[in-house]
Amino acid sequence: MDTLTRTDPADMLVHSGLLTDLYQLSMLQAYHFHRMREAASFELFFRGLTPERSFLICAGLETVLQWVQQLRFHPHELHWLASTGRFRTDFLRMLARLRFTGDIDAIAEGTPIFANEPVLRVTAPIIEAQLLESRLLNLIHFQTLIASKAARCTLAAGDAGLVEFGLRRAHGAEAALYASRAAYLAGFSASSNALAGLQFGIPVTGTMAHSFVQAHAAEALAFERFAAANPEQLVFLIDTYDIEQGAYRAAAVAHTLAARGIRLQGVRIDSGELAPASRRVRAVLDAAGLTETKILASGNLDEWRIAGLRAVGAPIDVYCVGTALSTSSDAPALDCAYKLVEYAGRPTAKRSPGKASLPGCKQVWRSFDPSGRIQCDHIALADETPAQAQACRTEALLQPVMRAGVRLSPPQTLRMLREQCLQHLDSLPDRLRPLDAQATLEPSVSSGVARCLPREPRRSPPAPHGAEAQTWA
Amino acid sequence: MDTLTRTDPADMLVHSGLLTDLYQLSMLQAYHFHRMREAASFELFFRGLTPERSFLICAGLETVLQWVQQLRFHPHELHWLASTGRFRTDFLRMLARLRFTGDIDAIAEGTPIFANEPVLRVTAPIIEAQLLESRLLNLIHFQTLIASKAARCTLAAGDAGLVEFGLRRAHGAEAALYASRAAYLAGFSASSNALAGLQFGIPVTGTMAHSFVQAHAAEALAFERFAAANPEQLVFLIDTYDIEQGAYRAAAVAHTLAARGIRLQGVRIDSGELAPASRRVRAVLDAAGLTETKILASGNLDEWRIAGLRAVGAPIDVYCVGTALSTSSDAPALDCAYKLVEYAGRPTAKRSPGKASLPGCKQVWRSFDPSGRIQCDHIALADETPAQAQACRTEALLQPVMRAGVRLSPPQTLRMLREQCLQHLDSLPDRLRPLDAQATLEPSVSSGVARCLPREPRRSPPAPHGAEAQTWA
Repeated sequence: MDTLTRTDPADMLVHSGLLTDLYQLSMLQAYHFHRMREAASFELFFRGLTPERSFLICAGLETVLQWVQQLRFHPHELHWLASTGRFRTDFLRMLARLRFTGDIDAIAEGTPIFANEPVLRVTAPIIEAQLLESRLLNLIHFQTLIASKAARCTLAAGDAGLVEFGLRRAHGAEAALYASRAAYLAGFSASSNALAGLQFGIPVTGTMAHSFVQAHAAEALAFERFAAANPEQLVFLIDTYDIEQGAYRAAAVAHTLAARGIRLQGVRIDSGELAPASRRVRAVLDAAGLTETKILASGNLDEWRIAGLRAVGAPIDVYCVGTALSTSSDAPALDCAYKLVEYAGRPTAKRSPGKASLPGCKQVWRSFDPSGRIQCDHIALADETPAQAQACRTEALLQPVMRAGVRLSPPQTLRMLREQCLQHLDSLPDRLRPLDAQATLEPSVSSGVARCLPREPRRSPPAPHGAEAQTWA
Repeated sequence: MDTLTRTDPADMLVHSGLLTDLYQLSMLQAYHFHRMREAASFELFFRGLTPERSFLICAGLETVLQWVQQLRFHPHELHWLASTGRFRTDFLRMLARLRFTGDIDAIAEGTPIFANEPVLRVTAPIIEAQLLESRLLNLIHFQTLIASKAARCTLAAGDAGLVEFGLRRAHGAEAALYASRAAYLAGFSASSNALAGLQFGIPVTGTMAHSFVQAHAAEALAFERFAAANPEQLVFLIDTYDIEQGAYRAAAVAHTLAARGIRLQGVRIDSGELAPASRRVRAVLDAAGLTETKILASGNLDEWRIAGLRAVGAPIDVYCVGTALSTSSDAPALDCAYKLVEYAGRPTAKRSPGKASLPGCKQVWRSFDPSGRIQCDHIALADETPAQAQACRTEALLQPVMRAGVRLSPPQTLRMLREQCLQHLDSLPDRLRPLDAQATLEPSVSSGVARCLPREPRRSPPAPHGAEAQTWA
């Protein structure tokens, strides 16, 4: 992670303040104009879980912290803002100096989260806290989306291997890179994405493409040539023409290679009916004495197909998951929001139909049963004393990670975060683990939060200066 | 587009050769090792259209050309490759010098395309052509995905305005930026994404967030303060507490602003039942004499909801489309591929079950009827003379855009591409235009292409050196 500095050509984390919705800058200009400088607290949360997910795995905090620390407006960006005719000179001068000086509390990456739980809280002068909204959502939403999908694959795959193959149909470069990271975080063991290897230290892996086989006059010749140039971690792709014949040719080539000390580690199947194909390939390999040669499968795989193949005992050792993972294709977006919960010491919330939010700075208390499984979650005001825990163990999930713009601790390694995430997956209650789980965990909400909830909107005659925002209990 | 240079902090186009699947580099090493330097042609195409789309709009060519020209491996990347233990020193030395020196033919951005039509062809020494695969797919796939979704919104919106609001739930920074570009290309009139404004010259627009209203003691006070700081292109968000009361307050504030020469251009509704809400709001505004004040709607909109709102005559002037557009949520990925079609003068294709491809360098001929509508498409070998056109007008869609690594013409402006795309949308046959169109256009395939198709795979006993790749007619 330390390689993420702006001078690194591989660095894709955009630190420009302009990667935001224009209205953030218009609001900032109004706050600046009216000298509204008091502290605001915003919380990021997922409104409700999509029916396709019984839990989410939060991710993206590390990229957020790096971004926040380097966030700024560059001179040519300020020049462009001036050219729009919407912004005053004194405001742009303020923007040029703007740095994030606030506090962030957050739930650790890799932790299961549920509807309405604040994942991250920003407390800062309102100009700084508001400015973060668009990109903060963009970073946390996507990485949580992919980590949540990856976790389902991890549960489905059991002791089979999982490799992330999603670069080509990920939504752009950053999506490809962060999908690799989120997948690894949530239990994948490797990625095909070379840049993710350099940038995050994720193990990289790969085989060959059909074009390589096609570029040779014969499949076996392609195998031999590939092996001569790439003798390490050797995997042949055997379905360019006919899977079973490909397996025979791979086995024959493997024998000639063995004589030269080169070991065929695996074969990949990318098409056809994977269950019968993998059985035929296994039989061919075993008959040739290649019992240690693994079978990798790819081609429109997702957690459902992995579970189906495992259910019928397909002899597949490694599942390579691409598009379904890197686009979270069954649920390509989650309903998340970054909402003002307190301004100048006053709890606040919106009452918009269907989109009401919980006011006040909050904490999530998680209780575990004696076996270490999650028992229940409780959302309380951050300064409330939680109800007496009935559980074996209760933890406060939101922890301070930044104070006055400074990180409180150095980044954890991605490998460490992955270990913690795998432990978290073990802590999921049984009812949330099946791919088709209809259940989710509904956090309870404290009486303190409930007391801050806005009253019903008044239907009385309109008043231009109605004090509707003061109707908190 | 000219602002996209590597020294620009806003530049997010990744020129690193490492943004690729590792297997590309393994294959390159084998080609290098065995001195396979002959010309290869690869074609990028969409295999089949997803049921949710009756046509696609191709996009992303401009970003591809910029990327290809600057593609290279940086010293620290080569150092990392060496550290994996998979690559030889002479290969890495070659990679350090590698630049793209090949040819590209492509269909212009904004053109409707259909299944199996080559959108782009690369002809280059096989090392260069193979290296492009992963990122080329990544760039073209995503931008085509979004332009295709945006075109459906354009058809649904008719003469109403369309604004792209998708940054926060787009899959990362690059997705947000290219979604803005693809949406504008396919008929949106503006974006909320400030960086897209700087980078692509897309008109930017925005209103205010609920948090701005919440940060004030009263809604009307928030409106007044916002207007004082942002008098131009003024739009109030009126649904933070109650939509109808918000409309009354907006109207009242608009009257006091009018006295100061500030005009309320619009109000935005982001929640609730938009059809009845917009009617109530329209009535409030009209009763207050604000007949010119527009109504903007947002909140989980897509082409279906836009069509539904227009069908019931909801008085909405501008539709703001976010997540559904920037993630193409109903079809977040398309089945595209980049396949070797010729190597060393020999046509080639794969026969993998369900994934067979069309061999040979191809051209797409499009015929139009007398009214200028698309009549049919015909896929032929690039050197075939097309069958005598029965149509009023026939065009070859693939045109040379790069020769020997050099662009043949400077970039067209995005505005010009947008105009052309809108004309292309007018050329769509009526049967492809409804949102629920079950039809698509099936291109015919020439006898020349058919003659190059590989024969059925042989089921005869396996031969390690079978000449299966030579079985072309």
